[in-house]
Amino acid sequence: MAEERVVDIALRWGDADAFGHVNNVVFFRYLEEARARVIPASGPGSTILSGGLVVAEQQLKYLAPLHYRTEPIQVGMSVDHVGGSSFRLACRVFDAETGTVFAQGFVALVTYNFATGSPRKLSTDERAWLTGE
Amino acid sequence: MAEERVVDIALRWGDADAFGHVNNVVFFRYLEEARARVIPASGPGSTILSGGLVVAEQQLKYLAPLHYRTEPIQVGMSVDHVGGSSFRLACRVFDAETGTVFAQGFVALVTYNFATGSPRKLSTDERAWLTGE
Amino acid sequence: MAEERVVDIALRWGDADAFGHVNNVVFFRYLEEARARVIPASGPGSTILSGGLVVAEQQLKYLAPLHYRTEPIQVGMSVDHVGGSSFRLACRVFDAETGTVFAQGFVALVTYNFATGSPRKLSTDERAWLTGE
Amino acid sequence: MAEERVVDIALRWGDADAFGHVNNVVFFRYLEEARARVIPASGPGSTILSGGLVVAEQQLKYLAPLHYRTEPIQVGMSVDHVGGSSFRLACRVFDAETGTVFAQGFVALVTYNFATGSPRKLSTDERAWLTGE
Repeated sequence: MAEERVVDIALRWGDADAFGHVNNVVFFRYLEEARARVIPASGPGSTILSGGLVVAEQQLKYLAPLHYRTEPIQVGMSVDHVGGSSFRLACRVFDAETGTVFAQGFVALVTYNFATGSPRKLSTDERAWLTGE
Repeated sequence: MAEERVVDIALRWGDADAFGHVNNVVFFRYLEEARARVIPASGPGSTILSGGLVVAEQQLKYLAPLHYRTEPIQVGMSVDHVGGSSFRLACRVFDAETGTVFAQGFVALVTYNFATGSPRKLSTDERAWLTGE
Repeated sequence: MAEERVVDIALRWGDADAFGHVNNVVFFRYLEEARARVIPASGPGSTILSGGLVVAEQQLKYLAPLHYRTEPIQVGMSVDHVGGSSFRLACRVFDAETGTVFAQGFVALVTYNFATGSPRKLSTDERAWLTGE
Repeated sequence: MAEERVVDIALRWGDADAFGHVNNVVFFRYLEEARARVIPASGPGSTILSGGLVVAEQQLKYLAPLHYRTEPIQVGMSVDHVGGSSFRLACRVFDAETGTVFAQGFVALVTYNFATGSPRKLSTDERAWLTGE
């Protein structure tokens, strides 16, 4: 994940608000969905999610209005920081065909043990998946 | 549209509620999205939406729990009634591969002139598109 | 609950869609929220929810457009049928001050044992709470 | 608005995700709703919204999990920067009774002329409302 991974996300007509654009809040839903599709459900890296993961911080700058369309948009994510029990994804919501970037920012995530209610250390395998080494 | 049209709909992880299933409310969002993808944006039938369309009534029976997955589910729609300024879509949310039906019901829609604030008659062309004749 | 119980529901600006009205799907969210506020979290009737409850069917007719406003709207619910392991709520979304009814319909719910994966019989106490006897 | 304005926001059961907490995305919906309730619809300051307003950037840090409850939570907002055609709201989502802060961050907004498709200068009156002078 040190190199950008790109995921197709399907828009929904209901993502638009009364201004007729995809609502600013919904962009964070796109980021969530992109994570759900990139962090694997099995095999290397899968314990990142199955072991417990919470969003600690997120930020987006909105660069261009996005209108409903039946073609998916793209979300790109790359790991730009790995800590002891956390990592950060640089994110952008864009159109791969035209190059238009609708929003960009980041999401910081903490690996978290829900049973003990405290952060848990990233394992060597998880760290390897995140850094791609 | 007298014969069933089937549309792929992408689930989102955020569609699930605290019970871990796709929330019952979200199924109506799937129906909305399926309509947005079936009623054409241009050519025959396109005036149905562009001329103004409102949901008059809708109903769903829930038959099986649906869990988040990265593969799309299917929404099938067929016109089962056409009135003077309205039509009804029989709908089902299902898995085309396994045949599991998660929910089924209908949506009744009224062609509506927002400028005058009253229903508008279906044109011959619109009626032809709806009945597939 | 044989007599109508009325609950205030706060609208959100984000409930509106690109047509500038509260979206038809969101009305079912209002019904869900009204249930969450009427079925008690403790005392008589509380086991209805804590024991497991699923939506089996729901239906709404839309009677008037609803626009965002900072004042709450009202949701009225009354039990109009009680079965062995199910009950039905007649519902309306309305403005208590003007009397305008925006939508009306029903929700059928099944008391459900998630552990066994099957419906569970309503207890005498639950039945008493539902019928108000 | 230089001093913090606090708004009650009603939670919805459906705001929770499969982890049983209010979903991180929904916190931005709370901020949106708080703005809708603070920026006036008429009188001084009302042109800020009616003249056109877009979200340029937003960020939140999540500090404590929030569970559904029927009592509202509070959103506090204070203007911490005013530019030529923009302003920034420092925001926090908290419980006024216990003092628990669930999330805090900011929203940067641009006054925008949708007709010309470009930012518009804040008027003297709008600036006065924002700075409270």
